[in-house]
This record gives sequence, C-alpha cells and structure tokens, in this order.
Amino acid sequence: MSRKKVNKVKHVNLNEIKDPSFLKNLSYAELNVLADDIRKEIIRCTAKNGGHLSSNLGVVELTIAIEHFFDLSKDKLIFDVGHQCYTHKILTGRPLETLRQTNGISGFQKIDESIYDCFDAGHSSTSISVANGFAIARDLKGENYNVIALIGDGSIPSGLAFEGLNNIASGKNKVVIILNDNGMSISKPVGALSKSFGKISTAAGYNRIKYGYRRAMFKTKVGKKIYNLTLRIKNWFKRHLTSPNIFTDLGFAYIGPVDGHDIRKLEKAFKRIGNTEKSVVVHVCTTKGKGYELAENDNTGSWHGVAPFKIQDGVPLKSSNHISWSKVFADLSLKEMKKHPDAFLISPATTVGAEMEEVLKQFPERSLDVGIAEEHAATLSGALSRGGYHPIISIYSTFMQRAYDEISHDMSRTKANATLLIDRAGLVGRDGETHQGIYDAAFLSTIPDVVITMPSTRKEAEYLYNESFNNHGVFAIRYPRATCLMEGKEQQLSFGKWVKVRESKAKKVAVISVGHLTHELNQLVEEKHLDCTIYNAIFINPVDEDALKSLLSYDKIVIYDAYSTQGGLVSLVTLKLSQLKFKGLISARCVPNVFVKQATITEQLESFGLLPRQILEELK
Amino acid sequence: MSRKKVNKVKHVNLNEIKDPSFLKNLSYAELNVLADDIRKEIIRCTAKNGGHLSSNLGVVELTIAIEHFFDLSKDKLIFDVGHQCYTHKILTGRPLETLRQTNGISGFQKIDESIYDCFDAGHSSTSISVANGFAIARDLKGENYNVIALIGDGSIPSGLAFEGLNNIASGKNKVVIILNDNGMSISKPVGALSKSFGKISTAAGYNRIKYGYRRAMFKTKVGKKIYNLTLRIKNWFKRHLTSPNIFTDLGFAYIGPVDGHDIRKLEKAFKRIGNTEKSVVVHVCTTKGKGYELAENDNTGSWHGVAPFKIQDGVPLKSSNHISWSKVFADLSLKEMKKHPDAFLISPATTVGAEMEEVLKQFPERSLDVGIAEEHAATLSGALSRGGYHPIISIYSTFMQRAYDEISHDMSRTKANATLLIDRAGLVGRDGETHQGIYDAAFLSTIPDVVITMPSTRKEAEYLYNESFNNHGVFAIRYPRATCLMEGKEQQLSFGKWVKVRESKAKKVAVISVGHLTHELNQLVEEKHLDCTIYNAIFINPVDEDALKSLLSYDKIVIYDAYSTQGGLVSLVTLKLSQLKFKGLISARCVPNVFVKQATITEQLESFGLLPRQILEELK
Repeated sequence: MSRKKVNKVKHVNLNEIKDPSFLKNLSYAELNVLADDIRKEIIRCTAKNGGHLSSNLGVVELTIAIEHFFDLSKDKLIFDVGHQCYTHKILTGRPLETLRQTNGISGFQKIDESIYDCFDAGHSSTSISVANGFAIARDLKGENYNVIALIGDGSIPSGLAFEGLNNIASGKNKVVIILNDNGMSISKPVGALSKSFGKISTAAGYNRIKYGYRRAMFKTKVGKKIYNLTLRIKNWFKRHLTSPNIFTDLGFAYIGPVDGHDIRKLEKAFKRIGNTEKSVVVHVCTTKGKGYELAENDNTGSWHGVAPFKIQDGVPLKSSNHISWSKVFADLSLKEMKKHPDAFLISPATTVGAEMEEVLKQFPERSLDVGIAEEHAATLSGALSRGGYHPIISIYSTFMQRAYDEISHDMSRTKANATLLIDRAGLVGRDGETHQGIYDAAFLSTIPDVVITMPSTRKEAEYLYNESFNNHGVFAIRYPRATCLMEGKEQQLSFGKWVKVRESKAKKVAVISVGHLTHELNQLVEEKHLDCTIYNAIFINPVDEDALKSLLSYDKIVIYDAYSTQGGLVSLVTLKLSQLKFKGLISARCVPNVFVKQATITEQLESFGLLPRQILEELK
Repeated sequence: MSRKKVNKVKHVNLNEIKDPSFLKNLSYAELNVLADDIRKEIIRCTAKNGGHLSSNLGVVELTIAIEHFFDLSKDKLIFDVGHQCYTHKILTGRPLETLRQTNGISGFQKIDESIYDCFDAGHSSTSISVANGFAIARDLKGENYNVIALIGDGSIPSGLAFEGLNNIASGKNKVVIILNDNGMSISKPVGALSKSFGKISTAAGYNRIKYGYRRAMFKTKVGKKIYNLTLRIKNWFKRHLTSPNIFTDLGFAYIGPVDGHDIRKLEKAFKRIGNTEKSVVVHVCTTKGKGYELAENDNTGSWHGVAPFKIQDGVPLKSSNHISWSKVFADLSLKEMKKHPDAFLISPATTVGAEMEEVLKQFPERSLDVGIAEEHAATLSGALSRGGYHPIISIYSTFMQRAYDEISHDMSRTKANATLLIDRAGLVGRDGETHQGIYDAAFLSTIPDVVITMPSTRKEAEYLYNESFNNHGVFAIRYPRATCLMEGKEQQLSFGKWVKVRESKAKKVAVISVGHLTHELNQLVEEKHLDCTIYNAIFINPVDEDALKSLLSYDKIVIYDAYSTQGGLVSLVTLKLSQLKFKGLISARCVPNVFVKQATITEQLESFGLLPRQILEELK
C-alpha cells in the first residue's frame, strides 16, 4: 500500500458519497488519494465480512477512471460476474460496512440495489451479451449513451462471451468492452486466448519502434525511398494478410494495452473510443490484489474469495478443527486417482474453491483445469469416456447449470461412465441468488439415466465415490458448502439403497431425509423420545423402492430435503409413492423453488422452516 | 450434376461397400466417379426419405479425400452435428436405403451403428471438445492415431466450439480440425467469425505474390538488398505485430484455404498436417448443395433439411392443406410484432425450420438471427428486457437445453418479461435421440417463476401468445412438430386456468391432458360413451389448483401428457394433488425419461402406450 503522505490533497469521506457526480470536481491527485482510501476500505471490510479481495483491489483506479470519465447517470456499466464491483458500490453511495451481511449490500452488482446497477450477474461471461442487448435497445429507441462491459481475462474465454463478441462484431450497435487483463483467472491462467493477450502486449512496443525507424530512414534520400517501399509493403501486409489480434480479426477496434492503475492514461484511452463507429475493446492491464501484498503475491487464486481474516498477517479469523466437504472430496480424489489409473479429473476454474489443487499437482497428466468452460468440460468428458478414461468433473452446483445440455447430449446419451463431484450443493449463504446450489438435483433428474446421490458422512462419501466407478453411467455426488461433521461408521452400503437411521415401533410416521441434517434431526428425535422411522436417502435418483414399499402402511411420510427444491427428492419420492398407491399423508419439506437472497445458511434454512427442530412438529 | 461420360473408369457398387479400405486401390479418376455416384445416391435417398441434403452434397469429395488419405480403422473422424455424414455412411458399409426409417440407419453419426462412428451428435459444435478428449486419451495411452474434427462454418462460432478451440490450443494434444467453409450456416451466415474466414481467403493470394516479388527483386543487386531488408521488416511484423487469422492467434497451425471439391488438392493439404506438432486447422471451401441445382442456388437454407421431394423439380411429395404449428406461430408472430412495438424476435439459427423468415424480413430492426448461440440468445434477451423491449425467442426444444443456465440466471432471475416459442416440443420422430423435445417442460419447471404452457388449437395459441405480453416473467409456449389440426373456438381463457373439455356425470374419473391429443381422446370418449371429466391443461406451470380441487372427490385422475417426461405436467400435478391430500388413484401416462430412438412419432407414441386409444382402457 502506498504510505506516501499526500499534502494539501483532500480526502473524500467514503460514507458520505451519494453518487459518482462528485468525481467530476476532483483533480487527478485527489482521484489517486481516493483510490488509496477505497483500497484500504476494501481490505478492511473484506477482512471483516469476507468476500472477493484480489479482483476488487485490481480495479480500483480503473473503476474510478470509468466513473470519472463516463456519465453513469446515463451510460450503462456492466460488471462481468460482479465480484469486482466494490469500488463501484462505494462510488455509488453504498458503503461496504454491511457487505454480504443479511439485509446488507450484496457482494455483486444488483439491479434492485441501485440505479447505477443496470444489470447483475454472479455467473461469469454474461456481460458482453448483456451489453449487446442494451446497445440494441438504445439504438432502436434512438437514445445516446455508452454501454460498457468490464470483463476479466479469465471470463472472456468462456463460450458465452465468445458468442457475444461474435454477435456484437457482426452488428452495428456500438459497445465498449473493457478487458481487465490481470493475467490470472480464478484459478491459474488457462487457455490460448489468455496467452494471446500476452502477445498483444509485446506488440505494443511496435508503435514506438515504427516512429524511430521513420526518423532514421528520412535522414537520407535512399533511406526515404526504402522507407516508402517498406511502408507500402507493410500496408499491404496490414491490409491483406494480417491483423494484430483476435479482436480486430473479429472486427472490433482495439485500444491498448493501457496501465490500469494510471487514471490519467486510462482516460486518454477512453477518449479514443469516440474516434470509431465500431465496437471497441480497451485492453487494460492490472495487478490483481494490488495494494495488499499477500494478495499481490498470490499466484494460486487463494486470495480471490476469502473468509474474514486478520489484515496484518492474512490469517483467517475463525479456524476450525472440522474439515469442509470440499476438503473431504479433495482428499478422496487423491485416493481415487491413485486407485484408478483410468481416472481423469476435470475442473472448470474452481480448482482452488473446490480445494483440488493437490490433485492437479500430484496428477498433472490425468487432470485439467479447463478454465471457465463448463460446457467444454462435459463434452470433453464424454469423449474421454469413449477413449477409455473415467472422467471426474469437480464443479460447483450453480455453474453446472451451464452444462445441462452437454451432460445430457454428450455424456448420459453416449453412456459415459463419469463422476460429477457437485460442490456447494444446497443453500450457499452470503453469495446469494446467483450461486444457490438448490436446483441441481431437480434439473439432473430430468436427464435420463443420471444417478444422483448425497452423502451425510465421510464414510458414505467414500462409498459413493467408489461406487461411481462401477459403470452406472453419469453418477452425481452432491455435497454442501459446509463442514463435514461426521466420519460415519463402517456399514454395508449398496447401490440404490437408503440407510435406515432408526425404526419406529408404531410404524405410523417416517421421515425420508437427505444429507447431514438427517443426523441432527435423528438426535433431536432421540432426545424428545419421538417414535418415527428415519431413512437417510443417500440415493436421490433412483429412489429406494423397497424402502418405500416398507412404508406403505404408514400414516404419514415426511420428505425432508434441506438441500434442494421440490424437483429433487420430493418429486421423485412423491411420484414413486403415488405409483405404489400410498394412501397416507405426504408432507414435503424442501427449499421452495425461488431465487434465495444472501443471508447465512442457517438463516436461510430457518426462513423456510427447514432446521431440524422445525421438522420436529411434523413428528409429534 | 456432372453428366460427362467417363471412359474406362470403373464404378463401385455402393451397396457392396464393406469398409473404406477399398478406397486405397482407386485412382483419382475413379475417386471422382465414386463422388459422382455417391452424390446421385444422396439425392435419390433424401428425395425418398427426407433428410439433410445441402450439407451432405457439400462434403462428398471432402469425405472421400479424408477416408482415402487417413486410415479410419484407427484414426478418429468426428462429424460435427452429424448431418453431413451420408457419404461416410456409404463408405463405411451403410447404404442409405433405410435412412431415417424405423430400425434403419440414422441420419447422424451413431456410436451404436458402426465402429467407424467413434462418437455421435445431433447438437452442434461439440466435435472440437470431443476431438480434444480423444487426443488426450490417445496421448495418455501412448497410442498413435489422428483425431479429426470436421466442422462447418455455421457451427464454429458457437460458444462450446470456442471453448474447445481455446483448450486445444493451450494443450499439447494434437488435433486436426477441418473447417468446412461453405459460407452458409443453417440459416443465413451470421457472425463476425464467418466474415473473418472471407478475409483469410483473400489473404491466400499472398503466397503467390510473395514469390513473384522475390524473383523480381533478385534480378538486381539493389533489389536483393531491398528484398532482404523488406524480408526482415516483414518477419518482424509477422513475429511481433500480426498473425494471419483467429486460429493462428490462438496458436493453431493453419493450412488453406483449399478447394473442397478437388480430392487431389485436399490430400496435398492433408500431407502438410504432419509438418507441425501443433494442432492444425485445415480450411476447406465447399459449395453447399453441390450437384443439385436447386440446393446450390438456395441461399436461405430451405434445402438444408428436407421432406421427401420430386428430384426433377424439387416439389415436396406430400402436400397438406393443414399448416404446421411452426407456421401457426410464425403467422402469429407477424401479428404480435405489429401489435407490440416493443416486441423483439430472436432466432438462434432456426429461422427457416421455425418458418420465421417472413418475420425477420418484415421486421429487420426488431429481429435477429444470432446463429448457433442459444446461450447468447437468452442472456441478450435478459438485457433487451431491461432495456425496455419484450424479447421473443423462437427456439427448438432440444436446442434450448443449451440455454438452461441463461434462462435462469439472466432471464427469470432478472424478472425479464419474455416469450419462449418452443418449437418441436414433444417427440420429434426421425431425427431420433438427439433431437427429442420431451424434456423442456421438466427442466424449465426447475427454474423459478417460469410459466409453461401448451396450446391445443390455433385460438389457444393466439391467446397464450397475447397473454405472454402481460408481465408474467418468462412465458414458455410449447408446440409440437406436427400439423395444427384445429382452429379452436372463441372462448374465455384466463391465466393459469385449464379448459374443461367435458364433465363426467358420476364424477369418478378425470383426465388431465395436454396438447392436441386431448381432442382426439375426447372424440374417442364421445364415441365410446365413456363417462369422465377431461381438462385441457394449457397451463403446465402453474397448474390450475381450482380445477384440481374440483377433482378431489374423484376415484381416479389420469394425467395424460404425450409431449413430456414425468418431470413436466405429471410431477407438477402429482405434487399438487399430494399437497391437496387427494386420496384417489393417480395414473401417470407420459413419455418415459429415456433417450428415444428414431421412428415415426406415431410409432414412438404407440410404443409408450400414449396414443389416445391406448388411454381409453384407463377410463373404462
């Protein structure tokens, strides 16, 4: 962090900002002080509340430059993903104090939160298509404003972004794309496109050399002639053979690369946007994590999304003896990769979040981070399976939505044997609506032949992981964003069979439950001396028909699924019970099929009546 | 068609081909005769059975060249989409006689059909990721064979293909991509990438010019010096500033463009593939529809997929007075576009198939064919909605799978008001497993707030289309690949309410049915004097709770949905009945959640017991 004392330059009180209009009155010196102050505030609030650190520190000056240069009261600024909008939040009157807290401000851009948030996201690579939409609407209405998409180099190689680029370039609706190139996506940089940015940066030296050459040659008459000849040749090349980069190939105007931490230079580049009628790519180079040394030096992505930490040494505030479900599956992956020489692990840019770094390190030949390319990950897996390998896709539930078609068309339909490790299944807490993992059981169950499972203990996790290698086709294992609380006991588990946790004497009431909360419910039932049967439905699809048959004489069956909407276990069990002509009452307790806002997971569960103690009433 | 008589060149009996090994013994003259014969056979069989004509006629020589040059007993050839594999079928011992017929050969590449079909598809743009998978598997096993993806210029701008390109280029597993550039995707050519291919072709003249320049300059001493200087400058440009096209930007070796109808030149190009360790793009220019004049002159895509026709004049063999559901919705679209100045129609490369050409022609400002880019279509729609427009996406059910995430994350979550016109919902007949439209009601119902509807008459279609403009969020209207048999009558329809088709006297048995088959069932019930209530569930989601409440005292409710798997109407109604504590029997009659092979739609329905006459037994 810059500790230089700046004299006579006034500080802005970040908590008193109403909207970005105040920026117009600030000098560049003052803007730089503001950048410094915002940077400190981002570090302070992220250390307190957790959130996205590195990406936000990288774009402080860039955001200030954009909001100083453009007029956001009419221009549209779209943050791709949105995990780099903290400076924007501050500049538009939303202090970070309540960042990611229940009823506080969101960690992403949100339409509902401010008129300066014209769209919002959470999933990557949508900003270019969104910009295209706004630009088309603007031009149809004959309005006059800029549409600016700010997208990182990790997000732009995703298919959706490319479709957007291709369509913008073939249309006439001008869009400004600011490419935030920090040479680092969420995980390690992947993909050829990112590499090509490096080539562009090298090429930037050309302009300087060109003018030096001209000056040298013009000193003599022959030199002049040669210069003119070479000029013609050069232009011929330029015209017929070549174009400097992928963006100009597609038909974009290209400006850059520009130093993303120099507000003055950034604005100089922005001025050039008006020189063309074409859509423009402004290539900005930034340092991710800038101003916080640990984040700046991080080249694994560990400082991308962080839990609350101590600013001085970066140590997390809360430490726990328990390990996360992610870690459980990462450790199991190491075992499975050793055990199965045909196993091949694929991660679409969530290697760090899913704690799979060690797998990629230990098995570099049989693992691959494909970048933000979930569709490719699935189709690739289909072919790997045909080629004799057993693909394991480590993926977040919410991002797997991108691969719905490919899991169906290229994996299940081709009878690929594959394991889907679905991390962050269920409610995810503070990331909010865009990241909920509550839909996957529902949408996977609409694809033929997909096995869907969820363990409640580490032992069950290990069993399911092993079982997924036994030629069941696409085998999904869901696990939540939570700590894994139980090791579990040795027991006989078999394909498609649920685990009976307790058996009722009266045989009147049963609970079909899923995931770890099953055990919490069981404990409460124990304590309250309630009489009911509890099944732990480690197989969501197919459901355990024999278990259900054993319950047909019961008065009431509670389906308790705190990790999914009704399309998951609730639908599948209800349909089967209906087929089996069950005459009793079915009570479905699951996450409603809505977009769930940020809060703690416990608060979210409570609001839906899904805490184990809230289920007890059903059993009395 | 070439009518030139070729002397002394023997013809191959196409029906006697066992595998492509016979090609090795043929001269180029013989290969060309073979091409001629195959072309005639493709025209003959497509005229008889229907199928993909233009795309197949375009790649006859290209396929022969590939199978003559490479060794398909070990090399892997992956056809993107697969609708250009007829020559491949013939060369690998599968005569076209039974093309697309029940139990006949598929119109696409199929793993199950031949050892020469190493993978298969039906959806576009998967071949590059598939090739990547095979190449990784090959190199891990230390095997030695070529992996070749053959992909058209219409398929390559799709996001998935780009993700594949990006990943191949950043890896070390060599792949050969043959770009079949006919300057025409399924609909009109769209996208900047396609245009960039044109630029490449222009640049191809460079090599010839370059050598001419060298010869001229080397005639004098000064010339030699200037040549050497310009060479250094040129190389500097080549190295630092420029690269010839998007593929070399990404890091591919590039060969081409090559005349795709010249087998000898094609093989010359293939020989150069071995000169590099990099993955290679071979750019081949072909004429779509080559050899059948009507298809060659077609620039709208009408000869892409065809029904049986008369070869002489191209007139369809069957004509019908009835109009298709596609046409009904195309006509309604013209009305709605006129009525709603904020309506904006988007078509992802299915303009011709969905009969929307006239809409794009009459409303060029407010309509857009985005090419094969379903994800972009949905995200773009979300932004158009925020920008004050009402997007209408005209899309096939099966291709909509690609946009699952975007319909959720960028449309429904952002509360976009939009109409989804889902063509080819339900069973699709001869296109087979990859094109079934039986899953959309199921997967759309897992996304919060999506309204799902299906009309049974033209009047209902008009009502639903109108209703979709009344701020209901994402409003899906499904319609089948069939003729629209009923105009329907004027009646009061309202949001969320089903239509009572008949009412039982005894109030014991009810059918909740959907789509046109409802009326066929009703007629049979009439004829057989059966007593049952029939509801026409034009709203699939939300279900009509009041209607269901009126049925709670019934003994039996049959849910009859011949257009969806159980995740659609069956699940939604069963869950609601369970909530309402319905005690009677529920009989679910819907399409099983499987991949359904090619046959006629009637045959498919019959095999699942879904013909109206097969439902009657439930009502006796």
